Amino acid sequence: MNEIRLVSESRCFGGVQRTYEHDSASCACPMRFAVFLPGGADGVPALYWLSGLTCTEENFVVKAGAQRPAAELGIALIVPDTSPRGVDIPGQDEEIDVGSGAGFYVNATRAPWAAHYRMYDYVATELVDVVNANLPVDPGRKSICGHSMGGHGALLVGTRQAEQYRSVSAFSPICAASRSEWGRNALAQYLGDDENAWREYDVSEAIRRQPSAHTLLVDQGGNDPFLDQLRPGDLQAACEASGQPLRYTERPGYDHGYFFVSSFMERHIRYHAEALG
Amino acid sequence: MNEIRLVSESRCFGGVQRTYEHDSASCACPMRFAVFLPGGADGVPALYWLSGLTCTEENFVVKAGAQRPAAELGIALIVPDTSPRGVDIPGQDEEIDVGSGAGFYVNATRAPWAAHYRMYDYVATELVDVVNANLPVDPGRKSICGHSMGGHGALLVGTRQAEQYRSVSAFSPICAASRSEWGRNALAQYLGDDENAWREYDVSEAIRRQPSAHTLLVDQGGNDPFLDQLRPGDLQAACEASGQPLRYTERPGYDHGYFFVSSFMERHIRYHAEALG
Repeated sequence: MNEIRLVSESRCFGGVQRTYEHDSASCACPMRFAVFLPGGADGVPALYWLSGLTCTEENFVVKAGAQRPAAELGIALIVPDTSPRGVDIPGQDEEIDVGSGAGFYVNATRAPWAAHYRMYDYVATELVDVVNANLPVDPGRKSICGHSMGGHGALLVGTRQAEQYRSVSAFSPICAASRSEWGRNALAQYLGDDENAWREYDVSEAIRRQPSAHTLLVDQGGNDPFLDQLRPGDLQAACEASGQPLRYTERPGYDHGYFFVSSFMERHIRYHAEALG
Repeated sequence: MNEIRLVSESRCFGGVQRTYEHDSASCACPMRFAVFLPGGADGVPALYWLSGLTCTEENFVVKAGAQRPAAELGIALIVPDTSPRGVDIPGQDEEIDVGSGAGFYVNATRAPWAAHYRMYDYVATELVDVVNANLPVDPGRKSICGHSMGGHGALLVGTRQAEQYRSVSAFSPICAASRSEWGRNALAQYLGDDENAWREYDVSEAIRRQPSAHTLLVDQGGNDPFLDQLRPGDLQAACEASGQPLRYTERPGYDHGYFFVSSFMERHIRYHAEALG
């Protein structure tokens, strides 16, 4: 069940960058994920990275420059795709914020999405089991990070299952999916019209209900054109209201893309390395 | 004539990553190039990067991770496209090694290519003039580097016009274009059947004719699937025969792609920084 198939492999910073495919039970289709293993890796801690809208497992590993600090600090990087692929759902390729590349890290309950779009279970449970069963990582040491929709995913998984992650960080996260236009479109399709169901997958709501002991690390570009979708103020208010520790930094002039993410990647890797020991 | 138009701009590592377009006289079409300027740049040295087959001005700036060390060391990065674009030449998009994305840094003399494919003059003269006229670089301090076909271009321009460049380096260069299948296909189309004309654009031949005072820095992946196209042994033999200083390192296990390039990018940037002062 947990068998993985090697798709590609390249030496990188003294370690190895790989792409794997496996048959996902959660998503009922083959799923791909990328892995960076530092040189001489055995029992290394793992940092999971969740990507944003339109991304596959490839964008981060090509653009973020994370392998260099990960190699130096001896951390594996695990990078899933952002949605099921190659399934047969009408309209799956028509909207930027629903369907392919836009799984939003939720378990869909509404047809036709519910048959495949179970990305919460996929990244929070199944992928972790697959990685632990097949790769030389220490199952007891993992952290999670992400960007935009993936920042939402990382904060969501990392606070809802807080005891399983040593540290949690995000770049430009969608902080309140149930109040973001992107999120509302996606959640209505995946979960139906009952907005109470949406709140389960809203990061700011989750933190208000149940803060974690982590100090969340969040960087946000000050010149990000999507601030109305991201709503960082909602996250700050939720953390303040619930006592959730938060290190939030606005980076003046930076936008939403990987030129921003790569600029502060080493900071996040070092933050996680400290928590991962 | 030297006017440039800003296409995109993103803050990056405290500096700025931009794409410009301008009307190229050499190529008789609009050409794009990417620029990284470190923060507070004024009179900074410039490192020119020439990319490989199929690349545009974008691949390097997204994948190589060069901005971080360039920002630290105060070096501008100048990254041209690899061929004319949007011109009307039959067959220009049919072969990987001729036409779009495959300018080979030569001045074509044969119709229909000669009307646009003058990439040697473009990168060695026109682009330099455009950059010096518009950007806060020090015209007296520049170096050149490249990958694969762009490694060929960097070694070619850097040794043929050696006095204009402080330092010259390459990743996995095509070392003898006139003996490489890719190069022979391209040179025949661009220059015609007389192989004497090809030798002018063959790096190893150029070094045999006229070595430079530079110590060329070359890194080559040991697991590169294109070694028969690249012919690093021809470069080593030419350098030995002519007394051209060469620091050639084979990197065991690395392949031809940007996971390799990014792994040793900082080494090349530091090598150039030392020469650029």
